[in-house]
Amino acid sequence: MDCIVGIDLGGTNIAGAAADIEGNVLTEAVVPTPAGGHEVVLKAIDRLVRKLAGDRKLKALALGVPGVINPEEGLCLASGNLNWTNVPVGSFFRQRYENVPVYLDNDARVAARGEQRFGAAKNCRDFIYVTAGTGIGGGIFTGGMPVTGSRGGGGEIGHMVLLPDGPPCTCGGRGCLETLAAAPALAREGRLEALKDPFSLLHELAAREGAITAAMVSEACDRGDIAANAAFQRCAGWLGIGLAGLINIFNPGKVIIGGGLSLAGDKLLGVVKAKVARHAMREQGRHVEIILSPLRNKAGLYGALALALSGYKQA
Amino acid sequence: MDCIVGIDLGGTNIAGAAADIEGNVLTEAVVPTPAGGHEVVLKAIDRLVRKLAGDRKLKALALGVPGVINPEEGLCLASGNLNWTNVPVGSFFRQRYENVPVYLDNDARVAARGEQRFGAAKNCRDFIYVTAGTGIGGGIFTGGMPVTGSRGGGGEIGHMVLLPDGPPCTCGGRGCLETLAAAPALAREGRLEALKDPFSLLHELAAREGAITAAMVSEACDRGDIAANAAFQRCAGWLGIGLAGLINIFNPGKVIIGGGLSLAGDKLLGVVKAKVARHAMREQGRHVEIILSPLRNKAGLYGALALALSGYKQA
Repeated sequence: MDCIVGIDLGGTNIAGAAADIEGNVLTEAVVPTPAGGHEVVLKAIDRLVRKLAGDRKLKALALGVPGVINPEEGLCLASGNLNWTNVPVGSFFRQRYENVPVYLDNDARVAARGEQRFGAAKNCRDFIYVTAGTGIGGGIFTGGMPVTGSRGGGGEIGHMVLLPDGPPCTCGGRGCLETLAAAPALAREGRLEALKDPFSLLHELAAREGAITAAMVSEACDRGDIAANAAFQRCAGWLGIGLAGLINIFNPGKVIIGGGLSLAGDKLLGVVKAKVARHAMREQGRHVEIILSPLRNKAGLYGALALALSGYKQA
Repeated sequence: MDCIVGIDLGGTNIAGAAADIEGNVLTEAVVPTPAGGHEVVLKAIDRLVRKLAGDRKLKALALGVPGVINPEEGLCLASGNLNWTNVPVGSFFRQRYENVPVYLDNDARVAARGEQRFGAAKNCRDFIYVTAGTGIGGGIFTGGMPVTGSRGGGGEIGHMVLLPDGPPCTCGGRGCLETLAAAPALAREGRLEALKDPFSLLHELAAREGAITAAMVSEACDRGDIAANAAFQRCAGWLGIGLAGLINIFNPGKVIIGGGLSLAGDKLLGVVKAKVARHAMREQGRHVEIILSPLRNKAGLYGALALALSGYKQA
């Protein structure tokens, strides 16, 4: 029996799945991302691929990798998450699997493919997938094609500049969307609100736990804490403002929100939609559907399967 | 002899040109845009097209129109500039010119095509054309294809939200790039600076002329006035910040700046490049070339010729 394999490589875990050539998932597995250089990680992926394929004949392999990826050359140019520079992922696997096509792309673009094939963006040629968690990434499709950019860096919507003199960003800039709306921003805003209100639940949690995390802000928010809610509103509001700008630029039919922050569900959607209503252009705002990712944390893995399948069908 | 005709429709003028099927320009003409409804304007275009074609056989017609355009349906959904809603431009001309294919697109996307075929973006698959004047528009190509969006509204980069509580925008939003960096913003910032410095040249000009315009700020800036320079730096800086975000999102090989503000030349480029250096991601910022439009105010007209030519070649 023939199969294809998709891999979603993250800084913490490597998720993998095998499917038949119709896209029916046969098996899934997750292993921790090993510490060490890229060789160690690539060998761990190799073992996972062999395990997932088993006795089946591997017809295509696709990987989603966090970082700047040149899909045509199968090259990871840079990954802050993995601490990689110029790692030839494609050729590593091509050497190991003879006559098996290997596809590689940025993890958020791959997750967008997952939504396109298996999730909320079926039959949608123009959509934005945004993943908001530790950072903010994006996979953008326009006219049915992913925005890859001249060197593979397309879709970095976490680095739209929204507050030029705002907090410093890991990218070297300041006030990027990511510094205002991702999980570390939620923790930071939570700390500020807790300081302002010593009778808040957030302040109590901080005193008990020693530090405020994004998860604590979310929890306090769910329990009705006003301070936590203020922090949440601010971060979710920035996400909405960033998305309003993107909606004006891309005029998408759908915006799909995934990642850890999307677990806040309707509370997040409410704030985002209010900001989009305020800031998007009329034509653009009226016709966009803003929804939560139905695939949740599986978007990247299913996207890798989708990438392998579309490559296999074209080959 | 066969010919193709391109039209650049603006709120003030209609520019037109005829070219042979190799793209060599044969003749150009400009007429004022008549006041009145869309029928009057379309008839004026009709007369101009017939005059430009003359005895030659018309093989294709293309028009750049300011507003939200659905190219597939040849429909102008909305144009604030012309005060049009749902005008079927394509079918108007198809009825008049039998068997002549008619192409229609947003004026900034058409101007981007002009740069692609005749100007600074030859052989470039990923580039951003930005036109900054009374407003700010954009034509974006990614992977060789224009960003049109689900309903023709793609490329509205003047409506990226950069200052959520900033000046109100014609689009109904607040703090869009256009409200911070286009000509009316330059005039507004000039007025503020003139008020702060009664010994400035700008203040003197304001007292003499009664009101400060963008052109006056530019002139005072050229003559070394510190107040005017402060206003210019602020507006050009916002343009640079907006472009930095777009560079992160699209990873273009080139950014081409046209429109009235581009007449400031190297002074504008200097400020924009400094902001991009500060705010763009390393990989993205290192490999982008930021230049002034070599076609200047002809980009739209030549773009219409390019659109007609590419349609003719494909037909």
